[in-house]
Amino acid sequence: MPTLRIALAQVNPTVGDLAGNADLIRGHSRTAADRGAQLVAFPEMMLTGYPVEDLVFRESFVTASRTALDRLAADLAGDGLADTAVLVGYLDADGPPMTSADAVPGRGPRNALAVLHGGRVAARYFKHHLPNYGVFDEDRYFVSGDTLTVVRIGGVDVALTICEDLWQAGGPFAAARQAGVGLVVNVNGSPYERNKDDIRLPLVRRRAAEAGATVAYVNMYGGQDELVFDGDSMIVEADGTLLTRAPQFTEHLLLHDVALPAAAPGQPAEETGLGRDGMRVARVHVSDELPAPAGEPAVGGHAERLSDEAEVWQALVLGLRDYVNKNGFPSVVLGLSGGIDSALAAAIAVDALGPDRVTGVSMPSQYSSEHSREDAAELAKRTGLDFRVEPIQPMVDSFLANLSLSGTAVENLQARVRGVLLMALSNQEGHLVLTTGNKSELAVGYSTLYGDSVGGFNPLKDVWKTLVWKLARWRVSPAATGGGEGPIPDNSIGKPPSAELSPGQLDTDTLPDYSVLDAILIGYVDGDLGREGLIQAGHDPEVVDRVLRMVDLAEYKRRQSAPGTKISIKAFGRDRRLPITNRWRERGI
Amino acid sequence: MPTLRIALAQVNPTVGDLAGNADLIRGHSRTAADRGAQLVAFPEMMLTGYPVEDLVFRESFVTASRTALDRLAADLAGDGLADTAVLVGYLDADGPPMTSADAVPGRGPRNALAVLHGGRVAARYFKHHLPNYGVFDEDRYFVSGDTLTVVRIGGVDVALTICEDLWQAGGPFAAARQAGVGLVVNVNGSPYERNKDDIRLPLVRRRAAEAGATVAYVNMYGGQDELVFDGDSMIVEADGTLLTRAPQFTEHLLLHDVALPAAAPGQPAEETGLGRDGMRVARVHVSDELPAPAGEPAVGGHAERLSDEAEVWQALVLGLRDYVNKNGFPSVVLGLSGGIDSALAAAIAVDALGPDRVTGVSMPSQYSSEHSREDAAELAKRTGLDFRVEPIQPMVDSFLANLSLSGTAVENLQARVRGVLLMALSNQEGHLVLTTGNKSELAVGYSTLYGDSVGGFNPLKDVWKTLVWKLARWRVSPAATGGGEGPIPDNSIGKPPSAELSPGQLDTDTLPDYSVLDAILIGYVDGDLGREGLIQAGHDPEVVDRVLRMVDLAEYKRRQSAPGTKISIKAFGRDRRLPITNRWRERGI
Repeated sequence: MPTLRIALAQVNPTVGDLAGNADLIRGHSRTAADRGAQLVAFPEMMLTGYPVEDLVFRESFVTASRTALDRLAADLAGDGLADTAVLVGYLDADGPPMTSADAVPGRGPRNALAVLHGGRVAARYFKHHLPNYGVFDEDRYFVSGDTLTVVRIGGVDVALTICEDLWQAGGPFAAARQAGVGLVVNVNGSPYERNKDDIRLPLVRRRAAEAGATVAYVNMYGGQDELVFDGDSMIVEADGTLLTRAPQFTEHLLLHDVALPAAAPGQPAEETGLGRDGMRVARVHVSDELPAPAGEPAVGGHAERLSDEAEVWQALVLGLRDYVNKNGFPSVVLGLSGGIDSALAAAIAVDALGPDRVTGVSMPSQYSSEHSREDAAELAKRTGLDFRVEPIQPMVDSFLANLSLSGTAVENLQARVRGVLLMALSNQEGHLVLTTGNKSELAVGYSTLYGDSVGGFNPLKDVWKTLVWKLARWRVSPAATGGGEGPIPDNSIGKPPSAELSPGQLDTDTLPDYSVLDAILIGYVDGDLGREGLIQAGHDPEVVDRVLRMVDLAEYKRRQSAPGTKISIKAFGRDRRLPITNRWRERGI
Repeated sequence: MPTLRIALAQVNPTVGDLAGNADLIRGHSRTAADRGAQLVAFPEMMLTGYPVEDLVFRESFVTASRTALDRLAADLAGDGLADTAVLVGYLDADGPPMTSADAVPGRGPRNALAVLHGGRVAARYFKHHLPNYGVFDEDRYFVSGDTLTVVRIGGVDVALTICEDLWQAGGPFAAARQAGVGLVVNVNGSPYERNKDDIRLPLVRRRAAEAGATVAYVNMYGGQDELVFDGDSMIVEADGTLLTRAPQFTEHLLLHDVALPAAAPGQPAEETGLGRDGMRVARVHVSDELPAPAGEPAVGGHAERLSDEAEVWQALVLGLRDYVNKNGFPSVVLGLSGGIDSALAAAIAVDALGPDRVTGVSMPSQYSSEHSREDAAELAKRTGLDFRVEPIQPMVDSFLANLSLSGTAVENLQARVRGVLLMALSNQEGHLVLTTGNKSELAVGYSTLYGDSVGGFNPLKDVWKTLVWKLARWRVSPAATGGGEGPIPDNSIGKPPSAELSPGQLDTDTLPDYSVLDAILIGYVDGDLGREGLIQAGHDPEVVDRVLRMVDLAEYKRRQSAPGTKISIKAFGRDRRLPITNRWRERGI
C-alpha cells in the first residue's frame, strides 16, 4: 500500500482577508512540505474565512475569491510546492452570482474545495449537504453540489468532502464507497459547542465505515463574531482506528503517515453516473506515484483531552481574543462590581489579552456595599489589570434633580449612568466595552437595557449562571492556577448575587434560585420543551409559568444585545429566532 | 358554468394568538356567509399568525395549532356555517416536530392550508415552494409538500396553494393545469415592499395563465415586528382579466361572484401521479352543487391605487401602530430635535396612535439653536402631542466634571444623556421609546450607540434620508392634508441637517450630500453592487471608497439597533446578514 504523508493545517483564517489567508496557506504549506507532506489540507472556505454570510451575494467578492485562488496556485508553485497537493476551501460560483431574491437551482455561489497542484487548480468540489439549521443558513447562500470529486494523488483515490457532508448519512460518503476511494478528506468550519468533541469522533468513525475508507478531518480554529472553532482535527481508519488527533483551540499542523490502498491503475478518468443520492463522480488525475516520504515516519500523536471547564474556558478566551484582535481594538474596558459575572469576564479578558490591555472600572453607588468595592480592588490586584474608581452618585443625582423618578426607573438610571461612563471611556481612550450579563440574565431579562447591557461584546452571553460559578471555581483551582493564586477572590464566588441597585437587594428577591432557574431555562431554551414537558421533568408549575413568561417578554432586550461567544447547543442570537410580537404563552390557549 | 361567491378575508392576525385569530376567522366567516359567500379564504398561517419563526420547533405550539384548527372547524359548524368552505392557513406537522438540528426530509413542521367544511377538516395542503432568501428562512422551518390538493367545491375543482408557490414557475400551478382545475386559491403572508404591488398583478396573471385557471389571491394586512403586510388581495382570470382588487393596508372582505368551469363529474377521487416537479395530486370531494348565490350579484370592485408616498406612509403608520398595540404599549415617547427625522417620526406616530398617545421631548443642549427649539414646539402645537422640554446641560456637566472628555466623546455624551432621559421617562410612565435614525444614518453609522439609537422601535429604520424629505413634503401637501395645515413645520423640512452636537455642526461636514450618499448606498446595500459597479454607475471613486468604508465599519452598531418597519427590497436586519468581523474591503485585495 502506498503511504501518504498527510498534513492537516488547523489554522485561523479571518473573514474577508483574502491576502492574509493566502499568506497563511503559503506559510503552512511551506512548513508541511519541508516536513515531507505530500497532501496538505486546509479548512472549509479557508481562503475567504467562514462564514462570510451575505458577502456571497457580492459579485466582487466571489470574483476576488476565484482570482485569489488562481494566484495562490501559481504562488505555491513559485514557492517550490508544485508537487504538493494543497486542498483549499474557497468561495466559487458556476454562473452569475445569484442575489438573495434570485435563487436559480444549478447556478450561483458554491461552498467549494480546490486541489492546487502544479501551479493550477487541478480539481474542485462543491459541498453537497448544506446545513440550514441553528446558526447556519447555507440554503440561503449556496447551491448544492451533485458531483463527488475523486482525485488520484500518489496512486491513491482521494474523495473531497466539506463539513456537513459528514453529518448526514448518504450523499458523498456513500458515493465514495461506490467509487472505491482509499481516503476521504473532510474540511470543516465546525463551530465549538460544549460536548461536541465527544460527538465528533463517533461521527467520523461512522462515516469512515460508510465510505469504507480512511477519513482525514480538518477543522479551523479561532473566533468569528459569535462562533469559535475548536480545531480537533483527526484521522480515522475505516475500521474506526483513531490514528491521530490534534489539540483544541490552538494552531496545529497535524502531520501523519497513512498507509492507503492503491487505486486500480487505469480507471476511467471521466465522470461516472452512480445514482446514490443523485451524486455523480468526477475523477481527476494528479499523480500515480510519489517518492516514499523522507526521513523519520511522521506521527501526529494524540492530544490530551480537555476537561469540560478547561474546554469552555479556552473557547471563551479564544472567542474574546479573536473578536478584539481581528477587529483591531487595542484594549477592553469593563465595569467591576465585585460580583461574580464581572470578575469572571475580567479573568477571561486578562487570559485573552493580558492585563495591560484590560481596564476595570469600579463604579460604586450609594447602594454598593463596602465588600463589593474591596472585592473589585482585590481582583484588580490579583490580575494586574488597569483599575479605576468612578463613583456614579453625582451623575445619578443630577438626573434625579431634574426628573421625578421612582422604583425601577431609579434602579435602571444607576445602571445607565454606568453605561454612559463606560462608553465615554471607550470613546475617549479607544477601548472596546465588554458587557457581562450571563445567559440566565439574558433569558429572563434581568438586566437594564442601555445600562449593564452596554458593550460591543459579551464573553458570558452563552454561559448559564450556574456555569459561571463552576468556571470561576475551576479557574482558581490548582488544575488551572498550577497552585498559585487564582484571579478571582473567594468573596466574589461565594456571596449571594445582587445587582445592588436598591438597599439590600438580592437576585433571589425576583428570581428563583439559579439551580432551579437554570434547569428550567435549559429545558425551555436549549431543549424547546413546552410547559407540560417542563412539569413532567419535575419542575414546579407556578415557577415554570413565571420563568417562561419572563423569557417570552424579554425577547426585545435580547434583540439589541451585544454579540458573544456561542458555547451551547443553542445560543441566543441567530441560533434562536423568535418574534418579539408574540402572544403565544405556554399556559395555553 | 357554476358561479361561486368567493370571499377573500384580508384580515390582521397576531402571532401566537390562536384564540384571537380563531375569533377573527369566525367573525369574518359569519359576515361573509351572511352575504352569501360559499368559499371564504383567509391568509397564510392565519390561525397562528405569520411568521412564527422558531415557535415551529416547540411541540406544544404545533399541537396547539392543530387542536385549535379542529376546534375551529367544529365552532364554524356550530355557528351555522357547516356548508361554507372556509380556507384557513395554520401550522401542521406530519410527524414528530423536528428540532432545528434534526431535519429529516418527509416529516416535521408544515406551512399548511386547511379546508374546513361540515364541522371538520375536509382537506389540507402543505406549501411546496419554500422561500429561503431575504427575510425568509422557510427551509429552516418547514418540510416542503409534494402533493397538490384539489378540492371539489360546488362542482368546481379548486387547487390550494400558498404564497411562494405563486412566485416560482412550475410546481403547484403547473400541476393545477394538468389536473384541470377551475380555480386556484393562493393564500399569502406577503410582506410589503415599495413597488411590490406593481409586481404582484403581473405575477398573478402569469400564474393564472400557467394554470389555465382563475386565481384568487388573498394576503393578510397588518404589522409583525419588522414586516408589514399590505393586503392587495385580488381575483384574476386565466386570460389575465382583473376581476376585483382590494385596497392596501386595511381590513377588507373582498366578495365577488366568479363564474367557473364545472368539473367533469365522477373524476377519480384518489391520488394521481403527475410527474411535473414530482407533484402528485390528491382530490377531495366537498360538494357537487351549491344553490346559486342569493340576492344581488356580489361585485368586489377595484380599489384606487395609492401614490408611492401614500403607500409608504400607510406602511409606516401601520407598522408602528401594530408594534405598539400588539405589544400592549399604552403610548410612545420620542425626542424632538426640531430636525426632519424626529418631526417625521412624530407625524407618523400621531397618525398611527393619535396625539394623546404620543409624548415628544425637546432636550436642548448648549449647541441647540433657538430655531430648533421653536420648530419642535411648533410641531407639537400642530399635532397636539404631549410636549415637554428637558434641558440636558446639568446632566452633561455632571459627567464632564467627573471625567476628562474631549471631541467625539463629548458629542456622544450629549446624545447618551438624552437616551438616559427618554428611558427614564419610559420606565417611569410606561411609554415605548421611539428612535428615529433613518436608513442613511444607519448605513454609515452616523449615530450614537446607546444615544439617539435608544429605543424599542424605529419607524424610519428603512427610510433613506432623501425619502424622509419626500415623505415630509408629501405629508404637508394638499393631497395628504386636504388643504389644512400639515403636521411638520416648513423649517424642519427646509433647513440643512445637523446633529447639533458641536458648534455650527452640519451633516455635510462628515457626509456627502444626501442625494449623492443615498444613490451610492442604494447601489451598495439594496443592489449588492461592488466598488467597480458603483464607479461604472458614475459615482466618484473617492466618495465611493469613503462611503463603503463607513458602511462596513458600522455593522456592529446595526447589530444592536431597534427593529423598524421594512419598506424596501433590502432592509437592515434579517434581510441583510453580514459579519461584524470582516476584513473584506471593496478596494480589493
